[in-house]
Amino acid sequence: MSESDLPVVRMAHGRWGDPARETHLPAAALDALRHLGARPMPPAAPAPELPAPADALVTALAAIVGAAQVKTDSETRWRHTRGYSTPDLLRDRAGDTTDAPDLVVLPGSHDEVQALLTACTELGVAVVPYAGGTSVVGGLAPDRQGYDAVVAVDLARLDQVIEVDEISRTATLQAGLRGPAAEAELAARGFTLGHFPQSYEGASIGGYAATRSSGQSSAGFGRFDQMVVGLTVATPRGTIQLGRAPHSAAGPDLRQLFLGSEGAFGILTSVVVRIRPRATERVFEGWRFPTFETGLDAVRRLAQDGPLPTVLRLSDEAETAINLADPDVLGSGGPGGCVAICGFEGSRIGTRRAEVAEVLQAAGGEPLGEGPGETWRRGRYNAPYLRDPLLDEGALVETLETAGFWSALPGLKAAVTEALVKALSDQGTPPVVLCHISHVYETGASLYFTVLCAQTEDPIAQWARAKQAACDAIGRTGGTITHHHAVGTDHRPGYEAEIGPLAIEVLQAVKSVLDPARTMNPGILIPPPS
Amino acid sequence: MSESDLPVVRMAHGRWGDPARETHLPAAALDALRHLGARPMPPAAPAPELPAPADALVTALAAIVGAAQVKTDSETRWRHTRGYSTPDLLRDRAGDTTDAPDLVVLPGSHDEVQALLTACTELGVAVVPYAGGTSVVGGLAPDRQGYDAVVAVDLARLDQVIEVDEISRTATLQAGLRGPAAEAELAARGFTLGHFPQSYEGASIGGYAATRSSGQSSAGFGRFDQMVVGLTVATPRGTIQLGRAPHSAAGPDLRQLFLGSEGAFGILTSVVVRIRPRATERVFEGWRFPTFETGLDAVRRLAQDGPLPTVLRLSDEAETAINLADPDVLGSGGPGGCVAICGFEGSRIGTRRAEVAEVLQAAGGEPLGEGPGETWRRGRYNAPYLRDPLLDEGALVETLETAGFWSALPGLKAAVTEALVKALSDQGTPPVVLCHISHVYETGASLYFTVLCAQTEDPIAQWARAKQAACDAIGRTGGTITHHHAVGTDHRPGYEAEIGPLAIEVLQAVKSVLDPARTMNPGILIPPPS
Repeated sequence: MSESDLPVVRMAHGRWGDPARETHLPAAALDALRHLGARPMPPAAPAPELPAPADALVTALAAIVGAAQVKTDSETRWRHTRGYSTPDLLRDRAGDTTDAPDLVVLPGSHDEVQALLTACTELGVAVVPYAGGTSVVGGLAPDRQGYDAVVAVDLARLDQVIEVDEISRTATLQAGLRGPAAEAELAARGFTLGHFPQSYEGASIGGYAATRSSGQSSAGFGRFDQMVVGLTVATPRGTIQLGRAPHSAAGPDLRQLFLGSEGAFGILTSVVVRIRPRATERVFEGWRFPTFETGLDAVRRLAQDGPLPTVLRLSDEAETAINLADPDVLGSGGPGGCVAICGFEGSRIGTRRAEVAEVLQAAGGEPLGEGPGETWRRGRYNAPYLRDPLLDEGALVETLETAGFWSALPGLKAAVTEALVKALSDQGTPPVVLCHISHVYETGASLYFTVLCAQTEDPIAQWARAKQAACDAIGRTGGTITHHHAVGTDHRPGYEAEIGPLAIEVLQAVKSVLDPARTMNPGILIPPPS
Repeated sequence: MSESDLPVVRMAHGRWGDPARETHLPAAALDALRHLGARPMPPAAPAPELPAPADALVTALAAIVGAAQVKTDSETRWRHTRGYSTPDLLRDRAGDTTDAPDLVVLPGSHDEVQALLTACTELGVAVVPYAGGTSVVGGLAPDRQGYDAVVAVDLARLDQVIEVDEISRTATLQAGLRGPAAEAELAARGFTLGHFPQSYEGASIGGYAATRSSGQSSAGFGRFDQMVVGLTVATPRGTIQLGRAPHSAAGPDLRQLFLGSEGAFGILTSVVVRIRPRATERVFEGWRFPTFETGLDAVRRLAQDGPLPTVLRLSDEAETAINLADPDVLGSGGPGGCVAICGFEGSRIGTRRAEVAEVLQAAGGEPLGEGPGETWRRGRYNAPYLRDPLLDEGALVETLETAGFWSALPGLKAAVTEALVKALSDQGTPPVVLCHISHVYETGASLYFTVLCAQTEDPIAQWARAKQAACDAIGRTGGTITHHHAVGTDHRPGYEAEIGPLAIEVLQAVKSVLDPARTMNPGILIPPPS
């Protein structure tokens, strides 16, 4: 089965992924959790009843999109409440309704989005753009202080492939289109986008663009921001359209000002992306390195001197031992050392595969064959499914990620690990900290951490302390506060420290032009002017 | 001889390039010019005497950089007057002093730059950042209306390689460092930057960054903006430092807001760039295609499906016939059809070369061997040297460039050519219009035009009409107003039309934050608020 055959998943609120694919923990994992001190949680609170929104607001927005596309019922609004970080799930379980939108509107065109932003600005209500809903950084929880209401603008109806230019190899995709639907439509014409983040089953094109997403095939296909050659954004002040050529020297690349803007300036309604011919061949294989250092050196060689596989990942010793990629054997141990996964997709991949093997072998790697590769590929979207049963069992499990230049990575990894271990041990819940590299560049790479420990009485505060310690360590050791999860509300302090107060003022000035009433996603990405 | 062996050229004012390498036109070219109606121009006006600047200004700036680094003499100021577009050279020849700075200061550190910007803001004088001085778009001719004086801040003393990180393969380069000096220093450590624009002999690292330069090896090394992973910019409001990782999802990529900002927000004092190991092998070869269309199809195949040579260029029929690359045979005709140049640099280039040959042959290409390739390589920085003798002989010669998506390129090329031919024929000077592709991407490519005709009585106005017609054609047919020459003052109308009034307001807002008194390069890139 290839990525274009996967269905779009409509997630249940408060639990990740396809409800039909609920994952159960193996006995070995349960034993390990008991050993960590985890005790089962009480069941989640039932979906709450939410107070009805003001009639005038409903009428005003219905005049733009039609009454049928304005949803005021509690169930729809609860489904559009916050995202999927562990704190989000914990708030959901506690029945916390503070982030619930007052209503959900579903525009059917760019012009309707534009009209909605104008109307919401006039009405003094806040807008939270919503597409896949898979944020893990508080990107769907705007600051509602000072607003009469919060309106979730769900882009689900903007789900079309508008145009495919087979000569230029570009496709114009609407923002509400989900990853699997985009792949299926492109596959029918012989193309692929090649963007497969872990949130692939539910995430959307607009979300990829607004958060600078990076997918598991980034070694071969690049990041999403590298795929975008054009975009259209509706702002409260009007529409901006950018991208008349792949690259230009006409001033700053303003496409890069809207990519990563997280709905704070407006709503990206469509993007023009580079597409490529569908792969005709595919091989995934595993490699073992004696230590993380040797593995790091090997993946760096591939990133700097090539050739690059389509997928390239390296787990550290702890992650290799836990073997998160394969829930069936979770906690049952692994092959030891550090496992790397190399995936090849394309045509005539044999030569590239042989050259990669030569580099890895010279760097001390031992081939494990296609078994571990295929296991990883089949399970590539599964890890987040484990989080809910782990939470059920009283474990706290969460991830965080950063990136840095190659020479900084060992120090960055050590500092973040130490910070997490200390912050959680100090709370009486010593954690397991796993790490992998999943995105490589010539000059550096990402580091992705998974943390697992027992919950305390207040797991939201417990994690907040650990996350703060990790973010401080990232700041101290020169990493970026996020490599592919975006800023949202959770990373705002680290982001402000990273770019500095003058650059924050620049963003505030841009927002003042495009969104003078601060209608768009207040409190997300950009702090209010002081 | 490789690029790292070339010396930095200190150009004479008003004539391109190394004065010792003055180029003479072959007899065949002179005959052709007479046929076009060109008649020799009068000799250039002598270098003018400029009025002395205000003592108070000199004293204030000398307090920051020392008296020896404040130059008030006419010769130095005339050398820092405007750039090297054909209209610039014509103004120089006419002795037009309107763009001359009142003084030239040479700061020795980032902190001195920062202090200069603060002081100039307080004093109400405009600042024009100056490094290589090779602008061809009016990027060194700020609007002096409303300012007591214009100060050229020459970055020549910021010419150091500050750091080389061999693990991360990055180098921190100061803005005033020239291309050949950077290559020589990196070569001594076994590395190359790989950025070789036609202005290479004189242009600077800071200029590359401020204008989003793209070099002749862009197929292999990418554009300069793709090489930059970090930067430091001094603005009148303070310093901003960006780039803690190769890529990040922490908000918009603000590096891309300063790359291409053309000194309108501040002065880039250093950048961190990706470097690569020096090439151990090098081959340049020529290919002939029967038509531009078949050649276009062939280079598109390489850009989209690979492999890419390090250098990839395709001349149209007219450019192939004129053979600009080889001044020795200029005007003596060429091999017919359309010639492409493929250059390979790196290690183990044999396989790549064979694969490229397979693609080109399948696309209808005929190999011409290394002769034309080596001729192009040796002459790669020579074409601009021809402009001065051509101007001497009464010819008008100028270039312009654009880029677009592949499917738009044939229409774009036809429209620009037609506009130039019509605008110049209507003035009684029918031109020769040559075109080549020299920068390719998966989704599109650049188009570079060279125009040659006889001068009228007022060649500046003559070219302005032709350029306007070409820019209108670019706007109508979907190209960008500049692929690698930047906006400056010349492209401002086309730029405003390209990104639209709301995006212009965004740039004005950014400028208001960083440069509230509009000290920096007034009138360049960004129009004043209306």
